[in-house]
Order: sequence, then structure tokens, then C-alpha cells
Amino acid sequence: GSQVRISKEEEDLEVADGFGENPFYHCLVAEILPAPGEPLGPCVVGYGLYYFIYSTWKGRNIYLEDVYVMPEYRGQGIGSKIIKKVAEVALDKGCSQFRLAVLNWNQKAIDLYKALGAQDLTEAEGWHSFRFEGEAMRKLAGK
Amino acid sequence: GSQVRISKEEEDLEVADGFGENPFYHCLVAEILPAPGEPLGPCVVGYGLYYFIYSTWKGRNIYLEDVYVMPEYRGQGIGSKIIKKVAEVALDKGCSQFRLAVLNWNQKAIDLYKALGAQDLTEAEGWHSFRFEGEAMRKLAGK
Repeated sequence: GSQVRISKEEEDLEVADGFGENPFYHCLVAEILPAPGEPLGPCVVGYGLYYFIYSTWKGRNIYLEDVYVMPEYRGQGIGSKIIKKVAEVALDKGCSQFRLAVLNWNQKAIDLYKALGAQDLTEAEGWHSFRFEGEAMRKLAGK
Repeated sequence: GSQVRISKEEEDLEVADGFGENPFYHCLVAEILPAPGEPLGPCVVGYGLYYFIYSTWKGRNIYLEDVYVMPEYRGQGIGSKIIKKVAEVALDKGCSQFRLAVLNWNQKAIDLYKALGAQDLTEAEGWHSFRFEGEAMRKLAGK
């Protein structure tokens, strides 16, 4: 039967920020590999987009911005495989934390992350995420 | 009287991740400049530590990890000046968002950020921050 491969892939994204020697972000792709004898090449069915962040107390950390699996390939553990690969990269790169954000109505994702050992920092410590954007940011910058 | 200067400063931090051509983070320092005729040199009384993050939808953004002002220099608007400088850097670097996190008991900071035009995304949209660390991260990576 088919296998799933998770690999680092930067070439397929046509966004300059993801290229070069020091890209702003990195992308893992999940590919379905054809069974022996099957004519199809690898087919991308999901991805994880991550980057490195920095904590004043904990040093270099990894942040998973986005993890996506095509609807017809969900329920096969592909999302978990992507998340596990990000944890491997985090350890390889000397990170002590691996962070991500989730919407409070996305119970499936919350259950998955908790089952994998994540802690909800908003619930446990009261962290709230704030954002300036557009007009507020320009006004703040005096421009 | 004394003036406050906010400047980019990377030399004073003895942490390798903050150096080199592509540092993981950047630091702004707030210095009290001596009045004319005063013998003292500039004195650092606060700082802001930020880095660049990446949104799948919004592209490159800036994240203010930490903003600090020494207790005896609070209430003079130095924190706001640091935040405004980060907004300037964000615009200069083509960022469409400027993000930060705050603990829900830190009402002074929440009031300041809201007064400056920030939106509480946890309150408005339900974003929760999750973290894997230590043993959970190693287990996840299978190490």
C-alpha cells in the first residue's frame, strides 16, 4: 500500500521569504508515495510551516505557524507525523520549546495537541495574544 | 533635563544567537542621555526584544517578545516609546502585523497596549497558545 513521507521542502513555495540562506520560514511537506509498481509520483497531501522564535528566558524555540492536511487524507495520523517531525527539527536545532496556537473552538486539534503532550499556556498561565495591524500600526509608528 | 534615546543595540548582549548577519532576534535599548554639561554617559534603563515571524496569510510580521523598563523609570512613557519604535521597524521591514503576548493579570500592560490600538486576539477570536517542552518534546520526536 501507499506510504506517507514527511520531508523538508522549500522549492515549491513561490514566496521569496521562504528562500535563500536564511529563510524566514521553513516548510515540511507530507507526500503519499506510490506503492511499488504504481505509476504515480509522490503527491503532496499536507504541510507544516514553522519558524524559529526566541525567548528571553529559554533561548531559541520553534513555532509551528500552520499545519494542514487535505480533508480526504485526515484521520490517518498525517498531522501527528508532521508535528513529530517539527519536534525532531526543534531538538536538532537546540530548541527547548515547541510552540503553536489554536482556536478555542477547534476541539479536535486541541485534543490532538494535548494527547501529544502539549500544555495550553493560555489556560494554565493566562497568556493572551495581542496584535497591532494596519492603521493602528501606522499610527503607532507615526506614519 | 535628560532625554530618552531608543536605539538598536546588539553588541551588548553576550548571546551568540543575537549576533551575525542573520540574528535570531533584535534588541532595542532605551538610554537616558545626560543633560548638556552632565558628566555621565548614556545609561540603559529599558529594552525591547523582537524578532520576525511569518503568517501563512499575512506574510512577514514582527513579534515583540519582551519589553522591559527599570522600575524607577516607569510612568515616563519609555515603554510606549519602545513599542512605537518596534512599529516603525515593522513598517520599514514590510510587516503587516505587530504581535505580542501578555498575561491576563497584567492589567497595566493590557490597558497600555489597548490604548495604543492593539487587539486582544485571545479575547476576540479565541486563540490559545500551546507549548511542548522538555520530556514531552523529546517523546514527540522519538528521542
